[in-house]
Amino acid sequence: MSEAAELEIMAPEAAAIPVRDEDERLNRAFIEAIEAAIADEDQPKLSELAANLHEADTGDLLETLDAEERAAFIRLLGNDFDYTALTETDEAVRLQVLEDLPNEVIAEGLGDLDSDDAVYILEDLDEEDQAAILEELPYADRAQLKKALDYPEESAGRRMQSEFIAVAPFWTVGQTIDYMREARDLPDDFYEIYVVDPTFKLLGSVHLDKILRTKRDRKVTSIMSERLDAVEATEDQEEVARRFERYNLVSSAVVDENDRLVGVLTVDDIVDVIQEEAEEDLRALAGVGDEEISDSVMTIARSRFVWLVVNLGTAVLASVVIALFDETIEAMVALAVLMPIVASMGGNAGTQTMTVAVRGIATQELSARNMVRVLNREVLVSMLNGVALAFLIGITAWIWFQSPGLGVVIGAAIIINMLFAGLSGLLIPIILDKFNVDPAIASSVFVTTVTDVVGFFAFLGIAALWFGLPF
Amino acid sequence: MSEAAELEIMAPEAAAIPVRDEDERLNRAFIEAIEAAIADEDQPKLSELAANLHEADTGDLLETLDAEERAAFIRLLGNDFDYTALTETDEAVRLQVLEDLPNEVIAEGLGDLDSDDAVYILEDLDEEDQAAILEELPYADRAQLKKALDYPEESAGRRMQSEFIAVAPFWTVGQTIDYMREARDLPDDFYEIYVVDPTFKLLGSVHLDKILRTKRDRKVTSIMSERLDAVEATEDQEEVARRFERYNLVSSAVVDENDRLVGVLTVDDIVDVIQEEAEEDLRALAGVGDEEISDSVMTIARSRFVWLVVNLGTAVLASVVIALFDETIEAMVALAVLMPIVASMGGNAGTQTMTVAVRGIATQELSARNMVRVLNREVLVSMLNGVALAFLIGITAWIWFQSPGLGVVIGAAIIINMLFAGLSGLLIPIILDKFNVDPAIASSVFVTTVTDVVGFFAFLGIAALWFGLPF
Repeated sequence: MSEAAELEIMAPEAAAIPVRDEDERLNRAFIEAIEAAIADEDQPKLSELAANLHEADTGDLLETLDAEERAAFIRLLGNDFDYTALTETDEAVRLQVLEDLPNEVIAEGLGDLDSDDAVYILEDLDEEDQAAILEELPYADRAQLKKALDYPEESAGRRMQSEFIAVAPFWTVGQTIDYMREARDLPDDFYEIYVVDPTFKLLGSVHLDKILRTKRDRKVTSIMSERLDAVEATEDQEEVARRFERYNLVSSAVVDENDRLVGVLTVDDIVDVIQEEAEEDLRALAGVGDEEISDSVMTIARSRFVWLVVNLGTAVLASVVIALFDETIEAMVALAVLMPIVASMGGNAGTQTMTVAVRGIATQELSARNMVRVLNREVLVSMLNGVALAFLIGITAWIWFQSPGLGVVIGAAIIINMLFAGLSGLLIPIILDKFNVDPAIASSVFVTTVTDVVGFFAFLGIAALWFGLPF
Repeated sequence: MSEAAELEIMAPEAAAIPVRDEDERLNRAFIEAIEAAIADEDQPKLSELAANLHEADTGDLLETLDAEERAAFIRLLGNDFDYTALTETDEAVRLQVLEDLPNEVIAEGLGDLDSDDAVYILEDLDEEDQAAILEELPYADRAQLKKALDYPEESAGRRMQSEFIAVAPFWTVGQTIDYMREARDLPDDFYEIYVVDPTFKLLGSVHLDKILRTKRDRKVTSIMSERLDAVEATEDQEEVARRFERYNLVSSAVVDENDRLVGVLTVDDIVDVIQEEAEEDLRALAGVGDEEISDSVMTIARSRFVWLVVNLGTAVLASVVIALFDETIEAMVALAVLMPIVASMGGNAGTQTMTVAVRGIATQELSARNMVRVLNREVLVSMLNGVALAFLIGITAWIWFQSPGLGVVIGAAIIINMLFAGLSGLLIPIILDKFNVDPAIASSVFVTTVTDVVGFFAFLGIAALWFGLPF
C-alpha cells in the first residue's frame, strides 16, 4: 500500500471533529456526525467517535439526542458504552433510557461501575425494575447495592462508594504500597486509605500524599490522622456537603452506627450535592420544584400549579383588603392607580431581605448570636430605603395628580410597608426554620401576603383618614 | 502528689468543650470560653482552646467575635494563629482584621501560607496596603504573589497555588517517590504530579493513586495521562468551575499562554466558586448584590436601593396602564379589587419560568438545540395552568361579585397573562444572554414589567369592551 493511500484510510474526516465548541457546549458538527452514524447503523464509525468520550460528554450527548437515538446509540456502542454516563444525565433522560434497555443489558453495564454510580442509576427506578435488575447481578454486587439502597434517600449511604482500601494498624507504609500494587478490585479513584481494627472499626485515615512522602519502614499508624470526622451512613447529604465544604475535604470515610467503615464519599459526588442544594433554594423561592429541562409538560404544569394556587390565596386575600375600601376608591380613583406601587415596592424589598435570610440560614451564617444585630440592621436599612423611596414616590404622586396630600399619603404607606417588608423578610424565614419548615419553600408566600396586605391596607386606610373618604 | 490531685490539675473544665453543637453551629459555651480568655488576656488558656482548631472553625469563630476581640484573639494566639483562617471568613470581617493588624505581622503570617490562600487574603485590599504588605515579604514569595495578583480578578491564576510537583519525563516512579520523600517545600495537599519538559511545558499528569499502584522501575511517562485539559491562567473561574464539575476533577494543572505549567487548581477552591455562582444567580434574581451578613447598613441600603428604584420604574409603568382606564374603574370598582390578582398570577408564573431558564442557561442545559422544544413546552404549560387558574378565579369572581361576566373577563385576562408570562419568562433571559447581559441580573425587571402591563391592560381592556364601560 502506498503511503498516500494509507494516510487516506488513517485520517477519516470525522476524527478531527472537536467534541465541544469554544463556549464549551457540545459541538453541532460532532452531534451531527453521531446522529449520522446512528442513522446509518455504522457501528465502527460510532465507536471511533464516541467510545473514548468522557462519561460527562457522553451524558450530555445522550441528553441532546432524541429518545429513539439514545437507545440505538447504546445498542450500537455495545461494550464501548460506559454506564457511568447515565449518572451525568437528567433524571428524565436516565429513566427513559433505562426503560428502553433490557434488564440483563443494564445489569451487565452496572456490574462494571463503582457502587455509588450503580446506586445513583438504580435509585430512581421503581421497586419492581430495581428488583429485576438486581436479580441479574452476581451475588456480591447485589448484596452491596441492596445494602446501599436500604439507606434513606439523600443520605451519605446512598452517595458513598463501597470500594475502599483499608489496612491493619500494624502494617508499614511499604506493605501498604505493595498491597496497592498487587490488589485488583480497587476503586477507580481514591485519595486516602483507612486504618481499621479486625472488626473494621475505623481507627484513622492516611492521605496518599503522606504515604508517598513517608519511608517504607514506618508504621501506617504513625502517619495516620486520627481526627475522625467520619460521616455516618444515615446522615443527610446536605449536612455532609456542608462539612466537605467547610473543611475543604476531598474524601471522607463513612461509618455505620457501630463506627465500622462501610464506604467512602468523594468530593465529586458532593460537588453535585452542593450545587443542587444552592439551586434548590433558588427554585423553592421561585416556586418551581426539582423540574428538569427534559421533564414532560404534565409533570411541570402540575408541580407549578400547586405554587400558583397557593399564591392565588395570597392574591385573593389582598383583594379582600382592597374590597374593604371600595367606596374609598370609588370616591378617589387615583388610589386604584397608585396602590400597586405600594404593594410592589414592599414585595421587592421583602424578597431582598428574605433571600439573604434564607441563604444565611442555609449556610448557617445567620444564627441566634447575630440575629439581633441583623434585625437592627434590617430595620435601619428598611427605614433608610423607605424614606428615600417615599420621597421619590411622594413627589411623583404629587406632580402626577396635582395633590400634595396624595404624595404624603403614599409616602407614609411606603415607609410603613418597607418596614414590614424588612421585618417579615427576616423573621418569617427564621420562624419557619425554628418550626423545621424549609424557609426556602414557604417564606415567599408569607412575605408577599404581609407586604400585599399591609401595603394596600396602609395606603387605602391612610388615604381614607387623610381625605375623610368613606370606607 | 496523690492521684486524685493530679487528675484535678490534668482535667481543666475547658478542655472538654466541644467546638460545635449538634446543629454543627459553633458551640455557645466554646465561644464564651474563648471570649473569657480574651477578656482575661489569658494566653495559655486561649492557645489551649484555639491553637489546634481547623482553619474553618477559626474563621467562623472570628466572624462571631466582636471587632475588638478579633484583633486581641490574633495577637494573643501569636504564632499559633493560622492565617488560612482568614480565607474562611466574610470579606467584611477579613478586611476589618487586616486593617487592625500591623503590615509586618500580616506579612509574617502570609509567609507560611500556600500561595492561593495568600492571594485570596491580599486581593481585596487596596493597592497601597497590598504593596506595603508585599514589601515585607522575602523576594521569592513577593514575586510569586505579585505574578498571581497580575492575573485578572476571578481568573484561574488568582485561585491557583504555585506550589506543585513537576518531574522530568525520563524519571521513573521510584525516583519520583524518593523525590517526594526528600523534598521540603511541597504543597500542603496534592492529588497529582505533573510531567514537564525542560522549558516547563506541560506533558501530562499522574494521579497519586496511579503512582502508588505502579512498580518502581516504570517510567512516569508510561502511566501519565496525556488528556490535557489544562486550565489557562487567564480563564474565568466560573468556566473552570463548570469544567471541574462536569469532569469530576479534583485538581487541574494551570498553564500560561505558552502551555507552561504555572500552578495547580484544587477542588476545594472550586467548590467555593461553584456555590458562589449558584448563589449569585439567586441573589441577582432577588435584586441583592454580593452583600454579606456582616456588611454595614449603608453598604446594604445602597446596593438594595438601586434595585428598588429600577423596580419603581416598572411599578409606575403599571400605574400608567391603570390610569388609562381610570374611568372604567370609576364605573366599576370591582375591577380595582380584582386587578392585582391578574398581575400577581402572571408575575408568579413568569418568575417560575424565568428561574428555570436562568439556571438552564447558567448550566448550559438550555441551548439553541432544545430551545424550540422548551418553548413549545412552556406554551403548553402556560395554557394548561392558565386555563385551570382562569376557571378557579373566574368562578371566584362570579360568586363574589354576583357577575358571570366578570368571571369570564378575569378568566380571559388570566389566560392571556399566563401565556405572556411563560413566553417572556423564557425568551427574556435567552435574549439577554444573546446580548451578553447576565440574565440573572436583568430578567426579573423585564418579566415583571411584561406581566404587570399585560395583566392590567388585558383585564381592564377586556372589561371595558365586555361591559361597554368608558375608558
